[in-house]
Amino acid sequence: MANAKLLPVLLSFLILPFSALALTQDFCVADLSRGDTPAGYPCKAHVGAGDFYYHGLAAAGNTTNLIKAAVTPAFVGQFPGVNGLGISAARLDIAVGGVVPLHTHPAASELLFVTQGTILAGFISSSSNTVYTKTLYKGDVMVFPQGLLHYQYNGGTSPAVALVAFGGPNPGLQITDFALFANKLPSTVVEKVTFLDDAQVKKLKSVLGGTG
Amino acid sequence: MANAKLLPVLLSFLILPFSALALTQDFCVADLSRGDTPAGYPCKAHVGAGDFYYHGLAAAGNTTNLIKAAVTPAFVGQFPGVNGLGISAARLDIAVGGVVPLHTHPAASELLFVTQGTILAGFISSSSNTVYTKTLYKGDVMVFPQGLLHYQYNGGTSPAVALVAFGGPNPGLQITDFALFANKLPSTVVEKVTFLDDAQVKKLKSVLGGTG
Amino acid sequence: MANAKLLPVLLSFLILPFSALALTQDFCVADLSRGDTPAGYPCKAHVGAGDFYYHGLAAAGNTTNLIKAAVTPAFVGQFPGVNGLGISAARLDIAVGGVVPLHTHPAASELLFVTQGTILAGFISSSSNTVYTKTLYKGDVMVFPQGLLHYQYNGGTSPAVALVAFGGPNPGLQITDFALFANKLPSTVVEKVTFLDDAQVKKLKSVLGGTG
Amino acid sequence: MANAKLLPVLLSFLILPFSALALTQDFCVADLSRGDTPAGYPCKAHVGAGDFYYHGLAAAGNTTNLIKAAVTPAFVGQFPGVNGLGISAARLDIAVGGVVPLHTHPAASELLFVTQGTILAGFISSSSNTVYTKTLYKGDVMVFPQGLLHYQYNGGTSPAVALVAFGGPNPGLQITDFALFANKLPSTVVEKVTFLDDAQVKKLKSVLGGTG
Amino acid sequence: MANAKLLPVLLSFLILPFSALALTQDFCVADLSRGDTPAGYPCKAHVGAGDFYYHGLAAAGNTTNLIKAAVTPAFVGQFPGVNGLGISAARLDIAVGGVVPLHTHPAASELLFVTQGTILAGFISSSSNTVYTKTLYKGDVMVFPQGLLHYQYNGGTSPAVALVAFGGPNPGLQITDFALFANKLPSTVVEKVTFLDDAQVKKLKSVLGGTG
Amino acid sequence: MANAKLLPVLLSFLILPFSALALTQDFCVADLSRGDTPAGYPCKAHVGAGDFYYHGLAAAGNTTNLIKAAVTPAFVGQFPGVNGLGISAARLDIAVGGVVPLHTHPAASELLFVTQGTILAGFISSSSNTVYTKTLYKGDVMVFPQGLLHYQYNGGTSPAVALVAFGGPNPGLQITDFALFANKLPSTVVEKVTFLDDAQVKKLKSVLGGTG
Repeated sequence: MANAKLLPVLLSFLILPFSALALTQDFCVADLSRGDTPAGYPCKAHVGAGDFYYHGLAAAGNTTNLIKAAVTPAFVGQFPGVNGLGISAARLDIAVGGVVPLHTHPAASELLFVTQGTILAGFISSSSNTVYTKTLYKGDVMVFPQGLLHYQYNGGTSPAVALVAFGGPNPGLQITDFALFANKLPSTVVEKVTFLDDAQVKKLKSVLGGTG
Repeated sequence: MANAKLLPVLLSFLILPFSALALTQDFCVADLSRGDTPAGYPCKAHVGAGDFYYHGLAAAGNTTNLIKAAVTPAFVGQFPGVNGLGISAARLDIAVGGVVPLHTHPAASELLFVTQGTILAGFISSSSNTVYTKTLYKGDVMVFPQGLLHYQYNGGTSPAVALVAFGGPNPGLQITDFALFANKLPSTVVEKVTFLDDAQVKKLKSVLGGTG
Repeated sequence: MANAKLLPVLLSFLILPFSALALTQDFCVADLSRGDTPAGYPCKAHVGAGDFYYHGLAAAGNTTNLIKAAVTPAFVGQFPGVNGLGISAARLDIAVGGVVPLHTHPAASELLFVTQGTILAGFISSSSNTVYTKTLYKGDVMVFPQGLLHYQYNGGTSPAVALVAFGGPNPGLQITDFALFANKLPSTVVEKVTFLDDAQVKKLKSVLGGTG
Repeated sequence: MANAKLLPVLLSFLILPFSALALTQDFCVADLSRGDTPAGYPCKAHVGAGDFYYHGLAAAGNTTNLIKAAVTPAFVGQFPGVNGLGISAARLDIAVGGVVPLHTHPAASELLFVTQGTILAGFISSSSNTVYTKTLYKGDVMVFPQGLLHYQYNGGTSPAVALVAFGGPNPGLQITDFALFANKLPSTVVEKVTFLDDAQVKKLKSVLGGTG
Repeated sequence: MANAKLLPVLLSFLILPFSALALTQDFCVADLSRGDTPAGYPCKAHVGAGDFYYHGLAAAGNTTNLIKAAVTPAFVGQFPGVNGLGISAARLDIAVGGVVPLHTHPAASELLFVTQGTILAGFISSSSNTVYTKTLYKGDVMVFPQGLLHYQYNGGTSPAVALVAFGGPNPGLQITDFALFANKLPSTVVEKVTFLDDAQVKKLKSVLGGTG
Repeated sequence: MANAKLLPVLLSFLILPFSALALTQDFCVADLSRGDTPAGYPCKAHVGAGDFYYHGLAAAGNTTNLIKAAVTPAFVGQFPGVNGLGISAARLDIAVGGVVPLHTHPAASELLFVTQGTILAGFISSSSNTVYTKTLYKGDVMVFPQGLLHYQYNGGTSPAVALVAFGGPNPGLQITDFALFANKLPSTVVEKVTFLDDAQVKKLKSVLGGTG
C-alpha cells in the first residue's frame, strides 16, 4: 500500500510546520553560558549524541584525603543534557573508614545503588525526628527523600562505590559542617544557633578554614 | 459613592507598582527568536489581540497523498500565544481510506473531537498492553493519554475532520514508521530492535527515504 | 531470529513485575464516588474503552432562553477519563443575539475553536487592564489565559457553535453576574465592593434570584 | 579526627565541580531587565543579602482617597528575590469605611493576616456559587483560593492593616470594576456581558476614566 | 434586557452539569482523617467559611523557656483549609536573647515579616556555601529559599514577633540540633558524620534527651 | 547555654503542633492496596527503614531467553518507598547478542549507567526524527528524554549490565513490538497504521502470541 509517494507526504505534514522549532521540543540541552532560569537553563541551539552522554563518572574519585571519600557529580553543570529532564547522577567513592558527612540536597530526592563494598546510610525525618538507617551491600538500593539530612559511610573492610541518581537536574548539596565551619558565619552566631561550645566551633572553624 | 476622585486612586495603587512588569504577568506569548527553555519560550515584549488568535486551522489540509490524511498543527511554533498556557491544538483531515499512522505525543495528552465523518481510533496502554478502540461519529470526543501509542483512520465513506486539543503547548509527534524507516537508523539496528524481517525493513526504508 | 519462545520471555519480564500496578500507571480514570484530592480524583480500578469516550457534546445545547446560549461541559465530573490528563472540553451554542456572560476559569486556560457562525470574544488582562478582542469566524481559534475575565457573544446573523478545550481536567467557571447577584451575598456588600448603585444591584438580584 | 588537611579535601570535591554553576542553583533572583519566561524571570548573575530583603512594606500606604484603602505589593516586580520561590507578599491598609474592591488573583492563592483593626472578608466559589465570609480581628488568618472573586473591607471604627502572602511570585490582581469601567471596553459590550444598565455603566466609566 | 427568566437558565447550564462535583473543584480542604497523598490530603466533603479561617496565630507563643522562643505553625495539620493551595503560615515569638535554632524547611520557601522588635536572620546557600544575613526591623521582609539552612534570633532589647508564610501547605521543619541530639542516632554515628567531639555530642545528647 | 530544660521546650514547640501529621509530611511511602491517584498512591500509615530500601536489583535477571536480556524494575509497584519522590530505578542484564527492543517510557526520562560490558544505545527525537546513538562502556552514562523511542543492545563479547534511574516513580514501559503484536489489535489495523506487510504482521503476531 505504501510507496515512494509516501515520503514527501509525511515530510510535508511533519517537517514543514515544525521548521521554526529547531530541536528543542523533545529535550533542552543546557546552554550554560546564558545563565539559569527558575525552570533550568535555556536550550542549546545545536545538539548531538554527545550531549546526552557523560564519561565523568567512569573513573574513581580520589579518596586519599581526610574524609577518605569523594563525590563526583553529573549534575546539569557537568552534564548539560539532563537539563529539564528531571534527573541527574553522581558517583560516590568511599575508602575504608571514609564518610560522606551529614548533608541535604535541597532540590531533589536521591536514589543510591551500591556497586561495591558495604555502606552504612541513614536519614532523619523532619518534624517526627525519626532516624532511618540501613546497612547496604552490593546491589542494594536506598532512597533519601528531598531536603532531609542524611549520611553514608563505609561500613566494611574494602573500598565502597555507589552510583547515585537524583530526581532533578540540579539537586544541590549542603553539607552541615561546611555550612557551619567553612565560611564567614561568625563563631558567636554558630554557637547561638546550634548550642555548640565555643571551643568546638573554633576547632572546626580552624580545620575547615572558616573565618569569624 | 464613587466619584471622579476614584480613578487616580485606583490607578495609583495598581499601575505604579507594576510598571516594571510589562504585560507578561498574565500570559507569556512566545518570542520564538530567542530560543526555548525547559518551561517554554521567553515572553514577547509587546503583544496584541492577534497574538491570541490563529487562523491556520480554518482550511482543510491537503489529503491528496498516499496516507490520504493531513495533520495541521497549532502548537507553540505556529501559534505563539499558547506558550506557557498548557494548551495547544491541531486539525485532522482524513480522506476516505486515509490514516494517521501509529504515533505518540511525548509531551501532552490529546483530546479529539470529530466534526465530520467517522473515525476509528485506538490507543494501547503500556505495561498492561491493552488496546482501547472506539468508532467515533460527528460530535464524539475521545482522549488519548500522554505518551501512549495511538492511531486514527477514516472508518466511513466520506471525508472525516477532527479538531484536536493537547494539554501542553508543544506536545511533539513521533510517528513510529517515521522513526524506524525515514532517517539514518541502519537497517541492521532496526531489525535487531524490532524483530522485523530484513526485506520488510528495506522495503519501508525505500518507501520512506530512510538510509542505512 | 524471533520465534515462539519470545512470547513467554517478554511476558515474564514485563507482566510479572507489574502485576501489582493494575491499569492505573498510564492514566487515572476518575472514581468520582471516592471524592477529590488536590491532584484530582482517585483512579477507577477497572477501565474500558468507554471511559476514554464522551458523547455528551454531540447535541446542541438548548438556547431558547434569555441569554440565548448554552455551555455544555465535558469536565472531569462529566467525562471521568480526563482525570489527571491535564485536559477537558466543552461545547458552546450561542443563538443570534446570545451571549456567554463575563466569566473566568480559575483553574485552566481555554482554547476556543469556532465551528459555525461568528463569535465576538474578548479578555481583559489583570494589572495592565488591557482589553484583547477578536471577531472569530468558522475555523478560527482564540486562547484565553487562565483566570482572566473573558466573554463570547454571537456577532452574526445565524447561530454560532464553538468547541472549547481547557488545559486542565476541572477548569471551574465563575460568572461575574452569578457571583454578585445569584446567591446570598447581601446587596450592601455587593454595592460596597463594586460601587454599583443600590437600584441596579437589587434589580439584578431580583432577576437572578439572589437574596439579601 | 578532623584536621587541617580536611579543608582542601572538602573544597576540592565540592567547589571545583560546581564552578560552572554560579550562585543560581539554590535560588534565582530575577533579572527583570531580561524579560519573563513561563516559569519566571532569568536569574541575576550576582546576588547579595539585599536581594532577599524588602523594606517596601514597612510604611503604611496612603488611604486618603475614595476607596480609603491602599494595596502595597511585594511581588517579583518589586521584590526580585522571590522569583522562582513560589511566594510573594503585600500590605493592605484600609481606613475606616475603606474597601478593597471585588477582585481575583489569577496566579496564586492568598493568605491574609490581620495585624490591626477589623476586616470583613469574603470569597465566592465558582460553580457552586457559595459565599464564604468572616469577620477578622487582629491575629486572625484567612485563605482565599486561587482565581476566586474576593473582597476585604474595614468593618471597624479604626484603621485596619493586614499582611498578605501569595503562593506564587507574581499572583496578578484583576479588580472587577477596573476591568469593566477603567479601560477601552465599549459600554455596549460591558452591558451585553454583564446585564448592567446603560446609565450604570456610563456612570462608572466616567468615574473610573474608561472610554467607549 | 435581563429578566426573571434568566435565573433558571443560568442555573440550568451551570449547576446541573456540576452536580456530581460537590464543592471540591475550587479548593480542597483537608480531610486529615483519611491520610495523606503525594499531592496533599483528600478533600473534605462539606466545608464552610470556618474552614478557611484560623485563629491559632492570634496569641503569642510561650517564650518562657531556654531558647526563649516559640514557633506556632498554621500548616495543613493545624489549618486544613490551606491543603492544595500552595501556602501556609506560622508565627514566631522571640524573647530578648531568644533564638530559632539552625533549621530547614524541606518542602517550601519561607517569607518572614517582622511585626515587632528586631530580628537577626541569615541563610546559607548550598554548594557555594555563602552566608546571607540581615538585621530586620518592624515592617521588613526577608525570604529564605526552600531547603537551605537558616536561623533567626532576637537582635534587640525587646520581644520580637514575626509572621511567616510558606509557599506550600506542609513545609516541614528540620532543626539541625534536634536531628543530631534529640533522637536515637548513636553518638558514634553523629561524631563520624559531623566531626564533632565525643564530649560535645554527649553533652548535647544529654541536654536534648537523645539516646545512644 | 543549653541545659536540661531545653528538651521539653523544643519538644513542646515541635512535636505537639505536629501531632496530627503522622509521618507523612517528609515522604509518602505507597499504600498500594488503596489504589492510585493522579499524583501517586496514598501514603502508608506506618513506615520503617525497610520501606526506603530495595534488594530486588541485586541479582542478575535471567537472560537465557530469546531476547537474551532481562529488565528488572524497581518502580513504585515493587519499591513503594519511591512514591511521590520523583525517582525510581531498574536493572538491565543483556547477554551477548541480547537486546532491549525499541520502547518508550511515557512518564519519565531515563538515565542509564553501564556497570559491566558494552552497550549500544540510541534514541530518536520526535518531529525532527533524528537518531542519537552511542557505544557505552563501563562507567559511561547516557540520558534518554521522556517519551522518545529508544533501545539498548549488547555490543560486546561478554554480558552487559546497566543500572537505570527514572525521573519519576512510575515511568511505564511501552515496547513497540509488544504493543503491535502481543495483544488483540487486529492484523488489519496493525497493517493499516504501520504499512507493514500482512505476512510480516502475522509472523510476529504468531511469535508474540497476539490474536486478531
